Amino acid sequence: MTEVDAILTGGSVAAMNDDFDLFSPGAVAVRGGLIQAVGSADQILAAYTAEQVVDCGGCAVIPGLINAHTHAPMTLLRGVADDLRLDVWLMGYVMPVEQTFVRPDFCWLGTQLACAEMIRSGTTCFADMYYYEEAVADAAAEAGLRAICAETVLRFSTPDALSFDEGLEHTRDFILRWKGHPLIMPAVGPHAPYTTTAQLLRSCAQMALELDVPLHIHIAETAQEVEEHRAEHGMPMVPWVKKQGVFEAKVTAAHCVHLDEGEMHTLQHHGVGVSHNPTSNLKLASGFAPVVRMLELGIDVGIGTDGPASNNDLDMWEEMRLAALLAKGVTSDPTALPARQALAMATIGGARALHVDQHTGSLEPGKRADVAVVDLQRIHNTPRFARDPDALYAQLVYAAKGSDVRDVMCQGQWLMRERNLLTLDEEALAAEAANIARKIDTFLIHREESVLSKLLVIGQVAQEKTFEVQVKVHLTDAQPAERLLSSSEIVVVKPSVRRQYDTYFLFDDPYHSRLRYREDELIDEDGQVQDALYRLTLISETKEREYARLVLLSRSRFDAPATRSRRFYREYFKPVAEVAVHKERRRYRVRYGGTDFAINLDQPLKPELPGMFLEIKSRTWSRQDAERKAELIGDLLDLLQLEQPELVKQEYVELAVEAEGLDEEIG
Amino acid sequence: MTEVDAILTGGSVAAMNDDFDLFSPGAVAVRGGLIQAVGSADQILAAYTAEQVVDCGGCAVIPGLINAHTHAPMTLLRGVADDLRLDVWLMGYVMPVEQTFVRPDFCWLGTQLACAEMIRSGTTCFADMYYYEEAVADAAAEAGLRAICAETVLRFSTPDALSFDEGLEHTRDFILRWKGHPLIMPAVGPHAPYTTTAQLLRSCAQMALELDVPLHIHIAETAQEVEEHRAEHGMPMVPWVKKQGVFEAKVTAAHCVHLDEGEMHTLQHHGVGVSHNPTSNLKLASGFAPVVRMLELGIDVGIGTDGPASNNDLDMWEEMRLAALLAKGVTSDPTALPARQALAMATIGGARALHVDQHTGSLEPGKRADVAVVDLQRIHNTPRFARDPDALYAQLVYAAKGSDVRDVMCQGQWLMRERNLLTLDEEALAAEAANIARKIDTFLIHREESVLSKLLVIGQVAQEKTFEVQVKVHLTDAQPAERLLSSSEIVVVKPSVRRQYDTYFLFDDPYHSRLRYREDELIDEDGQVQDALYRLTLISETKEREYARLVLLSRSRFDAPATRSRRFYREYFKPVAEVAVHKERRRYRVRYGGTDFAINLDQPLKPELPGMFLEIKSRTWSRQDAERKAELIGDLLDLLQLEQPELVKQEYVELAVEAEGLDEEIG
Repeated sequence: MTEVDAILTGGSVAAMNDDFDLFSPGAVAVRGGLIQAVGSADQILAAYTAEQVVDCGGCAVIPGLINAHTHAPMTLLRGVADDLRLDVWLMGYVMPVEQTFVRPDFCWLGTQLACAEMIRSGTTCFADMYYYEEAVADAAAEAGLRAICAETVLRFSTPDALSFDEGLEHTRDFILRWKGHPLIMPAVGPHAPYTTTAQLLRSCAQMALELDVPLHIHIAETAQEVEEHRAEHGMPMVPWVKKQGVFEAKVTAAHCVHLDEGEMHTLQHHGVGVSHNPTSNLKLASGFAPVVRMLELGIDVGIGTDGPASNNDLDMWEEMRLAALLAKGVTSDPTALPARQALAMATIGGARALHVDQHTGSLEPGKRADVAVVDLQRIHNTPRFARDPDALYAQLVYAAKGSDVRDVMCQGQWLMRERNLLTLDEEALAAEAANIARKIDTFLIHREESVLSKLLVIGQVAQEKTFEVQVKVHLTDAQPAERLLSSSEIVVVKPSVRRQYDTYFLFDDPYHSRLRYREDELIDEDGQVQDALYRLTLISETKEREYARLVLLSRSRFDAPATRSRRFYREYFKPVAEVAVHKERRRYRVRYGGTDFAINLDQPLKPELPGMFLEIKSRTWSRQDAERKAELIGDLLDLLQLEQPELVKQEYVELAVEAEGLDEEIG
Repeated sequence: MTEVDAILTGGSVAAMNDDFDLFSPGAVAVRGGLIQAVGSADQILAAYTAEQVVDCGGCAVIPGLINAHTHAPMTLLRGVADDLRLDVWLMGYVMPVEQTFVRPDFCWLGTQLACAEMIRSGTTCFADMYYYEEAVADAAAEAGLRAICAETVLRFSTPDALSFDEGLEHTRDFILRWKGHPLIMPAVGPHAPYTTTAQLLRSCAQMALELDVPLHIHIAETAQEVEEHRAEHGMPMVPWVKKQGVFEAKVTAAHCVHLDEGEMHTLQHHGVGVSHNPTSNLKLASGFAPVVRMLELGIDVGIGTDGPASNNDLDMWEEMRLAALLAKGVTSDPTALPARQALAMATIGGARALHVDQHTGSLEPGKRADVAVVDLQRIHNTPRFARDPDALYAQLVYAAKGSDVRDVMCQGQWLMRERNLLTLDEEALAAEAANIARKIDTFLIHREESVLSKLLVIGQVAQEKTFEVQVKVHLTDAQPAERLLSSSEIVVVKPSVRRQYDTYFLFDDPYHSRLRYREDELIDEDGQVQDALYRLTLISETKEREYARLVLLSRSRFDAPATRSRRFYREYFKPVAEVAVHKERRRYRVRYGGTDFAINLDQPLKPELPGMFLEIKSRTWSRQDAERKAELIGDLLDLLQLEQPELVKQEYVELAVEAEGLDEEIG
């Protein structure tokens, strides 16, 4: 009789080794953090004794689950924004919040929270990729969980590195400090091909090879990224990444939704592991990964939850179940990805994908004792059938839930017994998390109070006030304007013809803000579009001042190039209404009385208003300057030689609302 | 201050009414089984008092979930067979087990088990469709759950009706007995267009109209059923069902996976509710239902789990989440089917789809008090954000789980408090279920012990023994056979040419059974295939007896038309090996010595054996008859006029194994 530390006996043991051994009733003997023996209960109890003998009757005893791709600290962003397009979600919410809040203590707390959730649902190993990865590593180690911690490197500045050189330096330091830790495997995480550069990828691959650590990367998550990559580099993503030497390292590629057959062969050939993240791929509408084909080709495919901001949890049971179900739906084959294979992906397959299968992923003598005990006697898993040995896997994958996990051990240490966490204080973690959530709420609520501050968050430019004096005249034809422009008193500097398609987003905020999204097409002499400019301008409804002859002083509080689509702004700003104004504009820069003016002769296209409009405008800096320019504008009006100029106080957007009502495009 | 029975206060109340009112902290006042008032906690506590005030702080208070399509008693078949094709699963396992085991006590127990699981996960109303529906109704009523109970009617015999007339009679009796019950709404359930007839559908529709009860039916679950329907009836399924007057009744159609635009319009026009069953549709690889389009068209779409044998549980949280996720993946739009809409489908949408929205589905004064209280403070749902009111829905749909449900009330009666079931004894139910499972296991194990009994279960024909005496001669060419056939002593009655493609399934069972699947093509004079027959024959390896000149007495224990595909039989019987034998056979029925014989002149095609084979055979009934025929066969051999006939003892399958080894087709 050999003395061991603990014996888990009486359950149905699924070893998840190459032979898929099942022992029922079976037992696992654990000594020194390692698995000493696995077999039938009789056999093990005859050969080993232990002070701690844990009765696992009515339970399944399985390898601890392996979450092959997540961003653990993002538990703190769980539910911060949902059901949005990827760009709105990422650039409108997640990235601004990350830039403001992500610090080492945020990552530490978020990871501990994640560990509590992962332990509760039977996960003993996870592959992480975030910022301040040292805090992630420290939090995981303290929780007693195994983790592959990849420090994220991007070509732009991140919450923990102003440049990628700095990021690489950080990463090297982190790896050197943590290499050889019994639970933590540090790694390098170049974020994705589209967020890095060839040089950056080469540096990361060299570092991974030199320091002998894994490399974690996102590959081919969205169709858009894949199409843009091909357009830019003239080759598919995988061969391009290979060209940078990345696949010489021990690589895990997350997502791999949009790959062609050749790319899959390349991954297989280079032993690249894949993390399949079905919930995230559905929730962000990224697509259906060709999982069945990858498995057929012999690629090591694990399962990941992705970050809890796009899932919204870290429950590998939901993920396993979804992987098994989705494969059947996508291939129209109900025998595709059967339960045993799904559980294998979540255990030994994940270990292989992460290049840690020598340590974990199955219950085999010599491996580290990473074990989950799952209660199969809950009412939702009743009754049990014994005929088909595969029924155990079906029970685990199709009916069991994260909340059925009773006990969890990692490297021989109990992390949960009878659903009590032993290494973490959930209540304290939840209270701290609630604090952070309140601060994030305040940040976002404050931001959303005014359209301007919401705009500033994504605008990446400073607030800028612009004052203009201007007058608008309605004309029945172009003649008066031609008289003005041909007057000897003015000099026409720069004429141009434009077609301007404006979309005004209207808001209910205290400022009655209007955000104008302008597509400004510059038309050449042949009537062709020569260039197009996109601008975003925030205008408040109130006029600053009114001078004689309806010369108005107006203010725009923000004016910047519009770098994203109208659709993005619409979904991000959620206006209460939307109005379209289209016009052809003849624009002249003129000098008069030693002063620069812009004269616009506008032909409205939408709404269809009769006649034309003439605008005379000038920028201004001071009240005194504004008064002087208002007077000059009065003189210019005289040059129109109209008996009674029909002055218009309203802006085009107001005329449009009057003429057509609000645009129906908004839901 | 008005006195009520109970006040649930302090939680976030999601009323799921037309305005999607949210009260946080909110309260619900309950009196006489009905909702008296819903509002902010302050407001309700100021207006009402109750002896029972339940603190719902940290919880969401929502309408009880509605499972719009299930077969509750099938909890007892949960996990009996998984990861199989629909036909193998249904005809090979589920239907044989149902025919043997489904009795009223089975349905009662299975439903009670289902109710326990549904209450635990917050479901207060379900639409059922099974056999002995009265037992289902009784079990649900005793558990205190609301149910729409549709007695299944099919055109063939069912566990509770030998013919459909009998089924209709049962149904009418059941409806008359249960109509007006406070919790149970009896209904009629014609199974599906492909399992009923036009006449049967018309009768069901008339009954539903006459007795004013709902009608529950499966529609367009699989592509195959839809294609076959169109081929048979020359029109799509929905208009055909409409033609039978079905949509005059209050109809709920389950699945609706394969509908065209016109069919969806028809459903909408007639107020047909739909139950979307995403897990089942994936697990059986039925396809992706056009849910987003149906919702756009204004169809009332609820969510169902389908039976727990194809899910494998009754968890509406998994179903809601999957409905929301899948819609995004299928439409490539991450804003499709947002969380609020998913929760609406699982509550008020389901109530509308089931035509019970006047009673349940939302928290509104006057409706029955069907309520679930969901703990939102579990670690997997931490932290919470307050900025976006829709965040509550996202929490519920994307992160909450069935196990988070704390309390459940149906019609004002508490069914669960603090996760303790109040109307059911789970342990006793589980023990009884284990008993049934053991019996089903025994039945299936016994059946699988021999290929014959497995065959008999699906064969729908009696076991039939056939004895044959036969001899086989190897020839280098056809000449000897021609001599025999042109002999004046015999009369050739019926010559034919066939190409026979045989697949032998080999088994490791005690009988060394061989199951032959034969595609027998009858070739006309022009060499064209005139007809094809499919037969299944079970042969045991051992010869019954051997006579002089290698005349053998052999026995086939089962011989029947093969009505299903080779693929079906392969997956159902799971042979250990598979061997192909193809040959061209010239077959002659001859009379000789007053006795009928068959003479086969066979040219092997696969394996490619040199020369030809001649077989002389005759059926026999008794030992004496067999001896006589063996002698006659000896005489016939002489007519070949061969010096030394090369007699062959082996069967073709044995020659094939020798020549080519076992077929590699089997995995």
